[in-house]
Amino acid sequence: MEEFTVTPWEVSGQINYDKLIQQFGTKRIDDGIREKLKRICVDLHVLLKRQFFFSHRDLDLVLQDYEQKKDFFLYTGRGPSGEMHLGHLIPMIFTKWLQDKFNVNLYIEITDDEKFVFKRDAKWEDVQKYANQNILDIAAVGFDPDKTFIFKDSEYIKNAYPLMLKIARKINYSTTKAVFGFNEQSNIGLMFYPAYQAVVTFFEKKRCLIPCAIDQDPYWRIQRDIAEDLGYNKTAAIHSKFLPPLQGIQGKMSSSQAETAIWLNDDDKTVKNKIMKYAFSGGQATIEDHKRLGGRTEVDVAYQWLSILFEENNKKLMQIHDDYESGKLLTGELKQILVDKINAFLKEHREQRKKAEKLVDRFMYSGKLAKEMWGKVLV
Amino acid sequence: MEEFTVTPWEVSGQINYDKLIQQFGTKRIDDGIREKLKRICVDLHVLLKRQFFFSHRDLDLVLQDYEQKKDFFLYTGRGPSGEMHLGHLIPMIFTKWLQDKFNVNLYIEITDDEKFVFKRDAKWEDVQKYANQNILDIAAVGFDPDKTFIFKDSEYIKNAYPLMLKIARKINYSTTKAVFGFNEQSNIGLMFYPAYQAVVTFFEKKRCLIPCAIDQDPYWRIQRDIAEDLGYNKTAAIHSKFLPPLQGIQGKMSSSQAETAIWLNDDDKTVKNKIMKYAFSGGQATIEDHKRLGGRTEVDVAYQWLSILFEENNKKLMQIHDDYESGKLLTGELKQILVDKINAFLKEHREQRKKAEKLVDRFMYSGKLAKEMWGKVLV
Repeated sequence: MEEFTVTPWEVSGQINYDKLIQQFGTKRIDDGIREKLKRICVDLHVLLKRQFFFSHRDLDLVLQDYEQKKDFFLYTGRGPSGEMHLGHLIPMIFTKWLQDKFNVNLYIEITDDEKFVFKRDAKWEDVQKYANQNILDIAAVGFDPDKTFIFKDSEYIKNAYPLMLKIARKINYSTTKAVFGFNEQSNIGLMFYPAYQAVVTFFEKKRCLIPCAIDQDPYWRIQRDIAEDLGYNKTAAIHSKFLPPLQGIQGKMSSSQAETAIWLNDDDKTVKNKIMKYAFSGGQATIEDHKRLGGRTEVDVAYQWLSILFEENNKKLMQIHDDYESGKLLTGELKQILVDKINAFLKEHREQRKKAEKLVDRFMYSGKLAKEMWGKVLV
Repeated sequence: MEEFTVTPWEVSGQINYDKLIQQFGTKRIDDGIREKLKRICVDLHVLLKRQFFFSHRDLDLVLQDYEQKKDFFLYTGRGPSGEMHLGHLIPMIFTKWLQDKFNVNLYIEITDDEKFVFKRDAKWEDVQKYANQNILDIAAVGFDPDKTFIFKDSEYIKNAYPLMLKIARKINYSTTKAVFGFNEQSNIGLMFYPAYQAVVTFFEKKRCLIPCAIDQDPYWRIQRDIAEDLGYNKTAAIHSKFLPPLQGIQGKMSSSQAETAIWLNDDDKTVKNKIMKYAFSGGQATIEDHKRLGGRTEVDVAYQWLSILFEENNKKLMQIHDDYESGKLLTGELKQILVDKINAFLKEHREQRKKAEKLVDRFMYSGKLAKEMWGKVLV
């Protein structure tokens, strides 16, 4: 009996991440790699320290390339199916940190084509509207405008097409069936999309590093199967766990259920209401019981979110942990700590988003990397 | 027992075109339609008179639209897998006649993408080289440079992509299996291609008319299944028989066997040698027998070619027919008539090809229709 499921199209159950590493055949980010990262980056991002990013493929080779001055590049993306929530931003935040530390190029693919063919009744204008909104949220993260190229698939297609075709003819239907879960009813737009997803890993001859949640790993197995044949490197990846949904630590925060997520445009009051009302609590049924028996941090979503990202200070987190487990800190108080952290985070995000309006053109068209990319057709 | 096979990927055997009309569910171009065409066009092209173009879908509706001033447009194409032979030029010649007579827009798709994904070892540069050569041969046919848009798929992809995606999500794997003969090993580039093939029929809201050999008909069945759902017309088509290969009247002239075809760059001597050596003859084994028994025009490839295209004059053709059947005209003499006709045709083609060099830019980029097409993204 499987207790959990992790595929690119379903994440459910209580995930055993050790088992997942075995199942997927990836490697744990061990002390050795963490030490090496620390040596290069001086400090470690909280998402690494707390082992939210926990697994990888060929990250050791990426670091080796970097030390040998061969350099590498970063690739992430976003499917513009709607507004963005916190879970969507986490890989972006981590990617920005990597870009800062390693001073490397970054490609951000906005998969408007895939979202459009995935939902048969989606309207093109809606996908474009979300794409433009999402791009602002992404630009707000603070990437380097001269080393970052944000592009919509539909806009960059002409430049990428010949190389996509070279990739496409290496991938047959039966492979996509196995990796993407396609079947006889899958439409031919969806079927072609893996070529676009893969082509970005070939934007440079250097090694590509993809920060992503681990459920995305299978997508890159196709790339790793064909890359060397085409004269490129197998892509490397660094995998995160899933940000738990508000309702409990199983599965992942999902766009399809709005109330399980904190959205980037939720206002202070909405954030407070949602967390107070929905965030699954490790506390006891009554205050008396809680003070007597204490709370359980390992299932408490508010605590888990603090631990993953929002309380960077180890000592403070430990204090919260101990106070909650001992019953001294009540559920409402714990939740309020998170509410304040998230609202501060979202306030800052909104300010950055406003400022980013002026930067979008550089990310997409006029920055140094963007200009370079528009100037070439990839073959 | 089938005596012949006609699919988009195989044409073989002695084709019974009446049976084919039944099998495919198309309509014969009957006297009624021919009369109507004659009324509008004043004369009929030899390819219509001799019933080489013999079948259609919705040609009656096209003519009705035309008479009601609703207009229509033409669409043809070419897969740049190599040099072009006479068989490739026939639909182009007929399409030019239609454009002249109806004064309508024409779109010519150069499917460099499809040819590249079809042959897994094809080089992009080679496909592009052939594409450019083929475009010259096509431009030489003499289309209207302000009403004709010749485009390479790889170049126009950005403008066509959103509408292609709209089409793609209506077509699933099982449909392409049935229509294109795709299977588990088919690559995802090939699988996406039907969307490009269909999108051209939606370049205008008017009805589209496709002149093509009848083996191409199944491709348009997908379009006809989805067009009205997307707010467009089912495409119409006008179907030709196959130009017989030199070696005999079965099957069709094929690029894969160079010696079965007359190539547009064959010189006078090559044409003569090929026809004298390879053209299947309906004559008798010896001159004596021939004079006594006569030749059989219905299996004689030289006669068939004269009848399809190269001898427009009915009286002259009838004379040739009677003289050959009676044994008065010898095989070598019959072949020489064809050699002279073809060499004259190719000489003229070479001259037009030379002149067309200056026109290519108008067909592809700067002519009235081309400019219009580059100025819009189709959604």
